[in-house]
Amino acid sequence: MHRSRLYGLFIDTPAPDADAAGAFWSGVFGPPAVPEPHEPEFRMLAGAVPGLALGVQSIGPSDAPRYHIDIETDDVDAETARLTTLGAVEINRWLDCHTLRAPGGHLLCVIPVHSDRTLFDAEARTWP
Amino acid sequence: MHRSRLYGLFIDTPAPDADAAGAFWSGVFGPPAVPEPHEPEFRMLAGAVPGLALGVQSIGPSDAPRYHIDIETDDVDAETARLTTLGAVEINRWLDCHTLRAPGGHLLCVIPVHSDRTLFDAEARTWP
Repeated sequence: MHRSRLYGLFIDTPAPDADAAGAFWSGVFGPPAVPEPHEPEFRMLAGAVPGLALGVQSIGPSDAPRYHIDIETDDVDAETARLTTLGAVEINRWLDCHTLRAPGGHLLCVIPVHSDRTLFDAEARTWP
Repeated sequence: MHRSRLYGLFIDTPAPDADAAGAFWSGVFGPPAVPEPHEPEFRMLAGAVPGLALGVQSIGPSDAPRYHIDIETDDVDAETARLTTLGAVEINRWLDCHTLRAPGGHLLCVIPVHSDRTLFDAEARTWP
């Protein structure tokens, strides 16, 4: 058995527009867009949405703007296997982050638990 | 003064893939993907994420797959004006739904309050 839940929504923005996007989304939701100390390509809007991480990710200048979501789990390999069995295709892996493309074409990442453990335990679903 | 909050995340999928996407995302999150009675292009996954509407929207077969978000508000005109002042551009309007493109290129819609009013009152932010 393992567990998973929706961890976050990320606003992937070509690098030249990332500052403007950070300022815009900060205005939309309220909190400032603060660069992550060890991952400055992420500007996180802490507390923007209860129970959901929200951030702007700076991506390659020639990549198209997109949203992506992260699924957090207490077993990355089992969750990745579950989602690929459901039809997703793994297209990238970086450390513990597995990037999948869903049927229909959308991007999602599977990552280890990042939330406060109390939140994860309260909201994650359990899979056989 | 008016109020707004993130209402939902929508998985916009070209029509030929919408059934497969509905089945996949139902598997990812648990609840079935149920067509909305009066808007069958939306398959909603009720209860998939606490406090957040989640659904698959069938879009034109030649459109690219994308996510979009909906912002719900008790004053659609005021919220649309606020977001355009922040830099968004209105690209479509259908009934009470205003579709905006954010700086950086992402799509978001402004809609009237759709959530349970208790949830909206508890979580919406107030704007001057």
